[in-house]
Amino acid sequence: MRDFILYSGKGATSSGFTLKDLPGSGGRMDLISRCVISSLWLSRKVRDDTRLHISLNGPPNPPVTIRFIGKKLERVTPDERNIALWIKKVLERTEANSEDWNEAHEGIQVSSQSFRDIVRGFGDRQTYVLHEEGGDIRESEITEDPVFILGDHEGIPERERDFLDGAGVEKISLGPESYFSSQSIAMVHNELDRRME
Amino acid sequence: MRDFILYSGKGATSSGFTLKDLPGSGGRMDLISRCVISSLWLSRKVRDDTRLHISLNGPPNPPVTIRFIGKKLERVTPDERNIALWIKKVLERTEANSEDWNEAHEGIQVSSQSFRDIVRGFGDRQTYVLHEEGGDIRESEITEDPVFILGDHEGIPERERDFLDGAGVEKISLGPESYFSSQSIAMVHNELDRRME
Repeated sequence: MRDFILYSGKGATSSGFTLKDLPGSGGRMDLISRCVISSLWLSRKVRDDTRLHISLNGPPNPPVTIRFIGKKLERVTPDERNIALWIKKVLERTEANSEDWNEAHEGIQVSSQSFRDIVRGFGDRQTYVLHEEGGDIRESEITEDPVFILGDHEGIPERERDFLDGAGVEKISLGPESYFSSQSIAMVHNELDRRME
Repeated sequence: MRDFILYSGKGATSSGFTLKDLPGSGGRMDLISRCVISSLWLSRKVRDDTRLHISLNGPPNPPVTIRFIGKKLERVTPDERNIALWIKKVLERTEANSEDWNEAHEGIQVSSQSFRDIVRGFGDRQTYVLHEEGGDIRESEITEDPVFILGDHEGIPERERDFLDGAGVEKISLGPESYFSSQSIAMVHNELDRRME
């Protein structure tokens, strides 16, 4: 299993955003949707070994975490608008007022768990955070069933970075440039795919 | 300079598509927009050394090629809807009835050149086509100022593949899986970024 956790500082926590303005009203819901695409899709199939956990910390009701589960996903197509529409529907249907995972649509679950809850929930699984100062992923040992954490365009806030440091999360880097979150996820997958050959 | 050429079999060649249905009415304009994003943006800047040429072969007026030039791009934001909106505007403003490049907006040019015209236009520059059976990009020599060619979800049609073979274009692969076009572009960039360190 591959798990990704995306920290979104401003991602909307209610269905009140508009599909015509995902970057503004959705708190960069465009970026979030692209991360769903690059986490869960290959050219001709869905990655059934992958889940993406989106930690939403924007108004009006943070924290909310939405979890996309490749293996269970149905009727979702890989374009920004469709994915944002499903996130909107799921937030409309479900009050994220419980830490339990509420499956609001096949393969899309909602919870009121915070970023730290999500990270802690992985227990003993080896966890990596994408960071420009980390070791090169190509030179790093990656355990089976890895968990990768990354931020949105504003990155992970310092207080959460401190928490990750304290939790022993390993920093890992993708190269000399700083990439979009969705691009980073694609590169991590590619590295893992190559190792499974 | 890095140049990418995307072959789109059904990409709309007039402004008649709707932003509410980029996959259907736009002939996978969602996919095209994501390729623009992954070609031209890094986390905090536009790639001013990169251009993307989109060969549109859908109805009603093929062929049309739209060229995005990183260095000149203005007022375009990296989300599917905004990029599709600019493509729509550019197709509205410009009759693509000339092989000359008509700059319909800063950094976005339109021409009636075909896929083959575009490929031929690169003359002596080394050109690579992304192909599952090609040599591994990590093990391949890539010349300076490379040109990379890739297809959309349906791939490059056989007649155009034959043309590329005849033109001596080198096949190159990204790994054991078949990736989305936008993911592939991100991986190519990452490999080139690493070599420039």
